[in-house]
Amino acid sequence: MKDFLEHLDKAFEHRVRLGMASLLAVNEQLTYGDLKEKLDLTDGNLATHMRSLVAVGYVTEEKAFVNRKPQTTYALTPAGREALVKHLEALEALLKSLDT
Amino acid sequence: MKDFLEHLDKAFEHRVRLGMASLLAVNEQLTYGDLKEKLDLTDGNLATHMRSLVAVGYVTEEKAFVNRKPQTTYALTPAGREALVKHLEALEALLKSLDT
Repeated sequence: MKDFLEHLDKAFEHRVRLGMASLLAVNEQLTYGDLKEKLDLTDGNLATHMRSLVAVGYVTEEKAFVNRKPQTTYALTPAGREALVKHLEALEALLKSLDT
Repeated sequence: MKDFLEHLDKAFEHRVRLGMASLLAVNEQLTYGDLKEKLDLTDGNLATHMRSLVAVGYVTEEKAFVNRKPQTTYALTPAGREALVKHLEALEALLKSLDT
């Protein structure tokens, strides 16, 4: 059980961050608006959690202008993908250990 | 993805609380000392997280004297078991959605 705790990643502990990283794992990139809609988040919530994923190097943030409007796009980094897989594997191991 | 977020239980969000509830799901009851050792926790950490599981009615706490020493025993309530199963099912659904 100690092992399980050690392999879970604090960055993905909050369900909003787990949801964000999971969406970015199955979509090459997503805009701020995409994520906000798909996760049904407020602006403050989205910004706070995304900032923490960017800070640890798991997500990249790109700002650009599309039709003269500012648009922010997010993508999972290779380190973020690796960390997410490890986190999910630890959860899977926990689920299996409870099945028996 | 909204569904997934809604079905995760905030009570189990922190890995320590998820670990505690999981251990109590596969053991009828555990003492304070059992949990502390199995999860490699400090006293403060254990007490804080356990208090929150007791507060929402997911865990019962029983204090007794064993060989004249105080001993606290914890057990998962039926509500706690149901909530944990729902939480794990939501995580499983997320894992499956990422596999495809």
